[in-house]
Amino acid sequence: MITVLSGGTGTPKLLQGIKEIVKPDDLTIIVNTLENDYFSGVYVSADIDTVLYTMCDMINDEFWYGVKGDTFITHERLEELGCGELLRIGDIDRATKIQKTQLMQKYGLAKACDIQAKNMGIKSKILPMSEENSDIKIITDVGELEFHDFLIKHQGEPEVLDVRFSNVKPCEGIIDAINNSEAVIIGPSNPITSILPILSLEGVRDALKDTYVIAVSPIIGCEAVSGPASKFMGALNVEVSSIGVAKLYQDFLDTIVIDDEDLDMKSQLNQIVNKVITTNTIMNNLGVKKNLAQIILDSIPL
Amino acid sequence: MITVLSGGTGTPKLLQGIKEIVKPDDLTIIVNTLENDYFSGVYVSADIDTVLYTMCDMINDEFWYGVKGDTFITHERLEELGCGELLRIGDIDRATKIQKTQLMQKYGLAKACDIQAKNMGIKSKILPMSEENSDIKIITDVGELEFHDFLIKHQGEPEVLDVRFSNVKPCEGIIDAINNSEAVIIGPSNPITSILPILSLEGVRDALKDTYVIAVSPIIGCEAVSGPASKFMGALNVEVSSIGVAKLYQDFLDTIVIDDEDLDMKSQLNQIVNKVITTNTIMNNLGVKKNLAQIILDSIPL
Repeated sequence: MITVLSGGTGTPKLLQGIKEIVKPDDLTIIVNTLENDYFSGVYVSADIDTVLYTMCDMINDEFWYGVKGDTFITHERLEELGCGELLRIGDIDRATKIQKTQLMQKYGLAKACDIQAKNMGIKSKILPMSEENSDIKIITDVGELEFHDFLIKHQGEPEVLDVRFSNVKPCEGIIDAINNSEAVIIGPSNPITSILPILSLEGVRDALKDTYVIAVSPIIGCEAVSGPASKFMGALNVEVSSIGVAKLYQDFLDTIVIDDEDLDMKSQLNQIVNKVITTNTIMNNLGVKKNLAQIILDSIPL
Repeated sequence: MITVLSGGTGTPKLLQGIKEIVKPDDLTIIVNTLENDYFSGVYVSADIDTVLYTMCDMINDEFWYGVKGDTFITHERLEELGCGELLRIGDIDRATKIQKTQLMQKYGLAKACDIQAKNMGIKSKILPMSEENSDIKIITDVGELEFHDFLIKHQGEPEVLDVRFSNVKPCEGIIDAINNSEAVIIGPSNPITSILPILSLEGVRDALKDTYVIAVSPIIGCEAVSGPASKFMGALNVEVSSIGVAKLYQDFLDTIVIDDEDLDMKSQLNQIVNKVITTNTIMNNLGVKKNLAQIILDSIPL
């Protein structure tokens, strides 16, 4: 069994490679739920839906959000009616969210995801990090903002001073998944808002210490490959580099994969992590994604 | 001011005629809300939405439900996901329902309808009969059914033994609208499930006694022009004919309009109602609708 810790952009890219190599039922993906919330009356678990769509090849991989080729008839009509939605929810995507909202009321988030994954023909296990309502606040120079307000309404522009999120209980099965895995892969997702929430769940860091853990750095040089990761890292006084990433995972990390461009960091990283792999981490085509996945899998000790 | 009492099919047809003749801001429409309920997480007030769409020329007037030319992308995807919707909600129509649900949480149903009417460019007043949650149960030979279950899931087929609905408080403004009107028009809607709920609101029958009231019979011979009206009338031991309709409204009705075909009922009806008008009531084109509207308006005493 391989377990992947995932946010909503970098790791799904890597999953496109992993799913070509790992047998579907040997794969568990634990997904960040911190930013989940209700919008337009439906429960939006953006990262989970991105992982679902990625695993069944429906993902809009231009935006890493929503369904490829989706229409926006309801969304655009809401705008005409003066009731615009903060999130751009497509018509196919809205069906996923309506169903999840209904299933959750009956069964909770984990079973809802499980049913939806099966409906979409996905054989891998997709586990929300938690079934509890959670909250993340971005403290900025323009005040305290909800995550989606910061990212969409304010387009990630305000200066970030701090990031605060609520403590939630881990979803059942997460610790077992880690314990039963030959390797845990931490994808190149935002370390602060996607991975730290998973790591901060009770028991996760301890379980990871007993498992082979390999992380792909989402930073090249001193910039995130995509998204606002560097802003968040800076705000928490984490060095914006693969070294900063390695330090966040230091207590359990066995191997870090960094981009070829950061070859000069290797010796410094070797003082923090047992093994450092350099390769091309810019996943702009399936070849790179598969290659990166293969390198990760090949690193797993027998 | 003219006030119309409306359900969701017969009366909207007549409204298409009335709105060509009456000045929009001289018109108030009081709409049945008894069957309103939540579906797929949105509040569905089918009759109100039909009246809204009718008044802004968006109505699908083949089914008298939803928006003409609407798509069903979310609805069909929900079906694929094994989460089919009892009601067929179109993508444009869903935006109306999402907005109404949100507005209701903030303002209540009446103001929500008011805002939506304005958004759709409607200048007439559209008033829900009540802002309270209500309930209607159809007692049938296969058991007690929700209204939409009876009509859609069971396609109106079971034998109806009784119809029961909850008592609700009239929406603010309804009695005033009736009192301030030169005439109240009871459209050819289902007398049992669309009109009786409005009539049973506290104060409505009394207010109607002091106002000129004209009703268009939805029955020709012993059959409803459309829908399950005759089934419901039969179950409540109401004669399925314009005579049965007249008796339901007897205590306040001034004039009844019946179809030319029922000319032979005229003398019997004259013993119940002051005035009986016979004309073509089968509204299969705008000409008939306008003609019927004109006859009704011409009947109003100066």
